[in-house]
Amino acid sequence: MYIKQKNPHGGDIYARDIVMDLSSNMNPAGMPEAVMEAVRSSPESWQRYPDPYCRQLRNRISAREGVPEDRILCGNGAAELIYAFAYALPKGRPALIVSPTFSEYGDALKAADIGVSRNMLREEDGFRLTEDILSQDLRAYSAVFLCTPNNPTGIAVEPELLKKLADTGARLFLDMCFLDLTEKPDRYDIPALLEAHPNVTVLRAFTKSYCMAGVRLGYAMSSDGGLLEEMSAKTQCWNVSSIAQNAGVAALGCAGWLEESVKLIGSERRRLTEELEALGFRVWPGEANYLMLKTDRDLFGEMLKRRILVRDCSNYPGLGKGYYRIAVRKPRENDLFISALKEMTE
Amino acid sequence: MYIKQKNPHGGDIYARDIVMDLSSNMNPAGMPEAVMEAVRSSPESWQRYPDPYCRQLRNRISAREGVPEDRILCGNGAAELIYAFAYALPKGRPALIVSPTFSEYGDALKAADIGVSRNMLREEDGFRLTEDILSQDLRAYSAVFLCTPNNPTGIAVEPELLKKLADTGARLFLDMCFLDLTEKPDRYDIPALLEAHPNVTVLRAFTKSYCMAGVRLGYAMSSDGGLLEEMSAKTQCWNVSSIAQNAGVAALGCAGWLEESVKLIGSERRRLTEELEALGFRVWPGEANYLMLKTDRDLFGEMLKRRILVRDCSNYPGLGKGYYRIAVRKPRENDLFISALKEMTE
Repeated sequence: MYIKQKNPHGGDIYARDIVMDLSSNMNPAGMPEAVMEAVRSSPESWQRYPDPYCRQLRNRISAREGVPEDRILCGNGAAELIYAFAYALPKGRPALIVSPTFSEYGDALKAADIGVSRNMLREEDGFRLTEDILSQDLRAYSAVFLCTPNNPTGIAVEPELLKKLADTGARLFLDMCFLDLTEKPDRYDIPALLEAHPNVTVLRAFTKSYCMAGVRLGYAMSSDGGLLEEMSAKTQCWNVSSIAQNAGVAALGCAGWLEESVKLIGSERRRLTEELEALGFRVWPGEANYLMLKTDRDLFGEMLKRRILVRDCSNYPGLGKGYYRIAVRKPRENDLFISALKEMTE
Repeated sequence: MYIKQKNPHGGDIYARDIVMDLSSNMNPAGMPEAVMEAVRSSPESWQRYPDPYCRQLRNRISAREGVPEDRILCGNGAAELIYAFAYALPKGRPALIVSPTFSEYGDALKAADIGVSRNMLREEDGFRLTEDILSQDLRAYSAVFLCTPNNPTGIAVEPELLKKLADTGARLFLDMCFLDLTEKPDRYDIPALLEAHPNVTVLRAFTKSYCMAGVRLGYAMSSDGGLLEEMSAKTQCWNVSSIAQNAGVAALGCAGWLEESVKLIGSERRRLTEELEALGFRVWPGEANYLMLKTDRDLFGEMLKRRILVRDCSNYPGLGKGYYRIAVRKPRENDLFISALKEMTE
């Protein structure tokens, strides 16, 4: 494909004849009906410029997060805010990315002409972040990018260690886009963390939690108002569509949706893990709505033959051939995947 | 308002109790029903990542514009592409903005740390661009930003002069977002211009033409593939929502919509001009769906009292107190505005 670098992510189902996409990580419960209704209604809002300040939406996010409105900045998906953050960083010093992880941090830093150093998580540590990271001077970096639970491993950072990292005073960018879909969404006291640490920025997404990747909506939180203002100035005035704002407000009104989703994901993740291990795959104990596994087989190619798309993780810095990520879906879809795996391994 | 610089644009109706917004420039015919239907339908596309390459949409834009698909880059509104272009420019040399004009060029250049020089259009020339601009070395600038028809004046650049500008070899950013709503949408041979001049980038928007500012969709065209790739790399992978892509495809299928809209706008613009002149306002002969006028009265304040929002242009570099921009709307709305003006001038 011309223009745009080859899509380095999962979910590129557009050029392929796929029956099941396990390569992208949406809430398997799907999009709540109330959010669909919010997208469909208010056609008058489609015809005028969106509120550049996302006033109503930020008001609702504030109530949900327990974080003041003026510490919230909304974006056209969380991905836009990664770029805005990178553009807002001072030039001249590299940023540190705790890897393997989501490739968009590196792409954004490259776009912003900021060098990248990597703190590699080790397979012998189960890809868990350890206190070793504290032995270096983290303040020497323009920022430290950390994803928890991490993508693609699903492994979360211990709250104690996260606090110690925040206490170093280094500028932290904490991607918590999948936290809502774990069984401990409240493991970090985010309002207190932000209050005590203006050096911390937390990223959250509606994309994954409410299965609205095609609508695009995410937000960043920080008590460093100057940083949020700078991030805002690095993007256009009307970056969040009216539809995304309407959908976000509706999503925050869906009481119980996340709790129900987490139950579904938790039980299916455990079942999938057992089945995968029984079939001889190495599976990491991820906490989110996806699992990383390892195999010598060409899982990507074998599944593609069966029109199932999985995420080949060989292009993640810090991983290599043989690592794959699969989404945890609804029981019927997971059954289909397990059947396909059994067929392959027979 | 905290965060985000005070909205410097029209259309901020969210903090005000307004009955009629004449401060933003949408097609007064509104959004075609087929586009509304495209927004409402395809809920499955809301739940997955959008196509990062906008394949189907670019295919349709290509057919409409007579420009190859690989010379088209889509954005989250035209405004995002202004930022992407600014970020893609080489640092170190200032850019030239033909002013007064849309403030987003200057904001984007500032975000990208590129200095701004201005080529001021003169009131004694009727705010028309003249050949004087050719007397300087335009290649000394990292880019030249030119809006045609211009915002807020509605005055277009002569095709002959535009060709001469392109022939200088200077990097031109031509914002043609309002061209479709003028009575001569084909005055520039855009495919030929792009083919002969890789130094030219043309910006177009669905926002204004199909009244979908809340949906966000625009595109840039250039035969400089490296530039488009660089612009793409300066933004996230999934910048154009599925909904915007669906809406854009539907809009391009609305045969006759723009032609009908142009008829409405043309006759109402002429009527409004006559009425405004009869009331003693100075009105510029704009060609788009808005008019710039001059008066010693506090038109903004007087209209706001009547819950009508007009665009105060005093903060445009190159204009000052007394300049206002008003949208050309449907007959009934224009009647209301004229009545309000008559009341004010009585």
